[in-house]
Amino acid sequence: MPVTTLPKPPYYVVTFSSQRREGDHGYAAMADEMVAMAERQPGYLGHESARGSDGFGITNSFWTNEAAIRAWKLKVDHLKAQARGRVEWYVTYAVRVARVERAYGFDGHSLKHDH
Amino acid sequence: MPVTTLPKPPYYVVTFSSQRREGDHGYAAMADEMVAMAERQPGYLGHESARGSDGFGITNSFWTNEAAIRAWKLKVDHLKAQARGRVEWYVTYAVRVARVERAYGFDGHSLKHDH
Repeated sequence: MPVTTLPKPPYYVVTFSSQRREGDHGYAAMADEMVAMAERQPGYLGHESARGSDGFGITNSFWTNEAAIRAWKLKVDHLKAQARGRVEWYVTYAVRVARVERAYGFDGHSLKHDH
Repeated sequence: MPVTTLPKPPYYVVTFSSQRREGDHGYAAMADEMVAMAERQPGYLGHESARGSDGFGITNSFWTNEAAIRAWKLKVDHLKAQARGRVEWYVTYAVRVARVERAYGFDGHSLKHDH
């Protein structure tokens, strides 16, 4: 997936780190639904995701503010997915909610600062 | 890799998202050196990393405060590595520096809140 283009900080990031269990158990369908749901939420700015062959993965989703994150978390389907995920999909996971204060990057040609 | 155990927030996260070029070009050795260097830095709390088969990866490193992040960034070798990396290793990358305000997770048995 490409690096997500984001507005100038401040905005928020939710980092979701997880160790998957073996087997799909409906995970792929749930993951697609979660992304589709997030994209419809007010305040959603984008997300980036990577998972290695060892089953450890990180998804960073970006949001305009904490209220947007809380509204998303409260979505019933999301909560249901989490409850199921704890048992069937993940060995462990961690969520951290953080306020992005500065950002920079390389677009293939030059360094670019967002602050 | 396991989910990193971290202190109670606040602390900082640096998210590094990147699209790798094909081929190693010294990347693996540099990555190992960067981790070893970070672990010796004051204020380093841990890191998590994942890269998928498409070459897109995320590394989240955790730090006590922004001063620790700036000190780490200023390390000469690190800057050299970045300069080389822009040309040889990465198609694109993005860095976001964010203050973690709350965190929770699942340890295999139960939900755990750090806030």
